[in-house]
Amino acid sequence: MDSERVWTAALVVIGDEILSGRTQDKNVAQLATWLNDHGIRLAEVRVVPDQIERIGEAVNALRAKHDYLFTTGGIGPTHDDITVDAIAAAFGVPVIVHPEARKILEDYYRGRPGGLTEARMRMARTPEGAELLRNPYSGAPGIKLGNVYILAGVPNIAASMLEALTGTLEGGRPVVSVTVGARAPESDVADLLRETEAAYPGVAIGSYPFFRDGGFGSNFVIRSVDGDLARATGAELAERLRQAGYDPVDGGI
Amino acid sequence: MDSERVWTAALVVIGDEILSGRTQDKNVAQLATWLNDHGIRLAEVRVVPDQIERIGEAVNALRAKHDYLFTTGGIGPTHDDITVDAIAAAFGVPVIVHPEARKILEDYYRGRPGGLTEARMRMARTPEGAELLRNPYSGAPGIKLGNVYILAGVPNIAASMLEALTGTLEGGRPVVSVTVGARAPESDVADLLRETEAAYPGVAIGSYPFFRDGGFGSNFVIRSVDGDLARATGAELAERLRQAGYDPVDGGI
Repeated sequence: MDSERVWTAALVVIGDEILSGRTQDKNVAQLATWLNDHGIRLAEVRVVPDQIERIGEAVNALRAKHDYLFTTGGIGPTHDDITVDAIAAAFGVPVIVHPEARKILEDYYRGRPGGLTEARMRMARTPEGAELLRNPYSGAPGIKLGNVYILAGVPNIAASMLEALTGTLEGGRPVVSVTVGARAPESDVADLLRETEAAYPGVAIGSYPFFRDGGFGSNFVIRSVDGDLARATGAELAERLRQAGYDPVDGGI
Repeated sequence: MDSERVWTAALVVIGDEILSGRTQDKNVAQLATWLNDHGIRLAEVRVVPDQIERIGEAVNALRAKHDYLFTTGGIGPTHDDITVDAIAAAFGVPVIVHPEARKILEDYYRGRPGGLTEARMRMARTPEGAELLRNPYSGAPGIKLGNVYILAGVPNIAASMLEALTGTLEGGRPVVSVTVGARAPESDVADLLRETEAAYPGVAIGSYPFFRDGGFGSNFVIRSVDGDLARATGAELAERLRQAGYDPVDGGI
């Protein structure tokens, strides 16, 4: 197990709207889930403002450390969409009009009101050397440059680009999660959790407390790339909770 | 305006549960809003896994760059709560049992089922030299060490700690946001947006498109520390949208 190759990815969320508190990010959770299906672990996320240098710093720091880097946001048609410029600068390559992207936009906007305006043509700009990521949802493509995948910020459009990418990334074994819930304050079962984790090398147990319907409870999440091991640990944890007087709930509360 | 001191903060979200996609973070938006009320800008967020070294790297990188650093997560009673150890290591100080925190927990758990167990006493551990952040919600305090504010991960508890901190942090002028919405695809009004932003130095205009009820639309968010300027820009943008044939909606759609 120890020698198993672990594939990791990072995400740079480009977004003043997230940092201002105006918009609730939804791309972290959706990308994490998608990556896990491919056996790739989301290992780090950075949220940075809409500033060329700050985007470039984060992109260069993270693309070197991980197998894959994703970015979300800033690839639309307006003046505040500067991701392409920032990533081209980070790679030290010029921005070009990508012929294939231009063709996609020409086809998409043919017959639509306004047609392919200069503003919309901004969405055909890519760093030199880039490939395109198909966007079945709204035309304008995402961009792949080296190990960097540049996605839209609107969650539906990002999802559509991920959908088109499904099955194309190399990874390892997905992490399997097994959740057991109990109406137990986590501090009452802390020893039992630690002992269970120690008894099953290769699993990690996370404890996530909540207060709901007037009472404390916790969900315990067992994670492992070995699904059988995760399930066996879950069964053992449930048994130990039962012996401690709690009523474990498979799948969590 | 250019010489105005800008106060910035960063946030380190400590959480395998966020990186696995299991849990949707709510602390970024809540902290961003709270900071802005204090005239402090949330300038960067990093989400890191529950690993001592990765937490320490992020904390040391960001506490040096910003006026304030916040962390959320990993200060509970279970084995996966390692934030205190990670931050003590990052500062190069030992972990101690904080006498005041111990007293708070003794008072809180007196008469509650189970009492002050060894697991719960973990929540009295702090890096040496730390002060406490009151937690009216559930007893166990947050921690302040230098310019680092260590908050709980459960959003209600983090909110309670922020509530207790309200008014105690020095900042500058809050950013005022004015939102104007229109049933316009952003690409149709990109020029108009750019020109309006250029005409009002000291404002930034963000464009946030959506697809809803079968049609495209956008919200335009004008931000400035000068509230009058933000409102004047918003009025001007609404007028320009009207002249372009759209029906602007104050406050957004």
